Amino acid sequence: MAWDDAKGMKIAIDEAVKGLNEGGVPIGGCLMTEDGEVLGSGRNLRIQKSSATLHGEISTLENAGRLKGNVYKNCTMYTTLSPCDMCTGAILMYGIKRVVMGENDTFVGGEDYLRQRGVEVVNLDNQECKDLMAKFIKEKPEEWNEDIGTE
Amino acid sequence: MAWDDAKGMKIAIDEAVKGLNEGGVPIGGCLMTEDGEVLGSGRNLRIQKSSATLHGEISTLENAGRLKGNVYKNCTMYTTLSPCDMCTGAILMYGIKRVVMGENDTFVGGEDYLRQRGVEVVNLDNQECKDLMAKFIKEKPEEWNEDIGTE
Repeated sequence: MAWDDAKGMKIAIDEAVKGLNEGGVPIGGCLMTEDGEVLGSGRNLRIQKSSATLHGEISTLENAGRLKGNVYKNCTMYTTLSPCDMCTGAILMYGIKRVVMGENDTFVGGEDYLRQRGVEVVNLDNQECKDLMAKFIKEKPEEWNEDIGTE
Repeated sequence: MAWDDAKGMKIAIDEAVKGLNEGGVPIGGCLMTEDGEVLGSGRNLRIQKSSATLHGEISTLENAGRLKGNVYKNCTMYTTLSPCDMCTGAILMYGIKRVVMGENDTFVGGEDYLRQRGVEVVNLDNQECKDLMAKFIKEKPEEWNEDIGTE
């Protein structure tokens, strides 16, 4: 069996596009098993829900709902952007085995720490993901800084 | 000025007690500035809201709402239990400068990593916090394992 990274990333990008169209931070996620079952997907909801914690990956985990710990161990977290420290920690807490990101040109999160802790990390270097963030940051730089805790 | 740790921890414990009375995981949090302003408090809502991400500290950050990044830099996160990897990551992402925990006998989270990244970590070794968790884990061991991603 092989991971269907194209499928997982497409779902994450679709979430990011929805986010942008809502006026939100265009970062999306998707949690998928190795046999292609989508357990959940989500997008950053800082602006839409005035949320300080619903980043793309956290929304994805929240939408996947309550799952037994062993379910996560055979999953990939797809995310359109390198995961911040919070989302890195969520991935580690649940023992998600793989992270596939759209890009890390816009922002570099906890990739090294994920690898140190045994998580496989893949960067697809996807232009669409970069373009979504470039458009958002150009229009709303303050919201982006707020989202990653920058002063 | 000195941190009023007794005040911050009391609020966190009150949240944990509320959680226990609701049938939930009894872990609470509180975000407070050095001059004693409470920016938010919250509790674990796994059971109450069927949430996979609303741990005590995440709920606290969510309830504090959208804040500018520099606000967090002068705060302590109070939590009744050593913060898991996800909550550790959230503290790091926002640059919260201090973490005061009720105890770490029940569970040891990302304390070492917090210290490595420059966060001051204090353990109050509080018996009430330990008793709350002991009672919960005795009654609902599976829910506790699920909450920390254990198989």
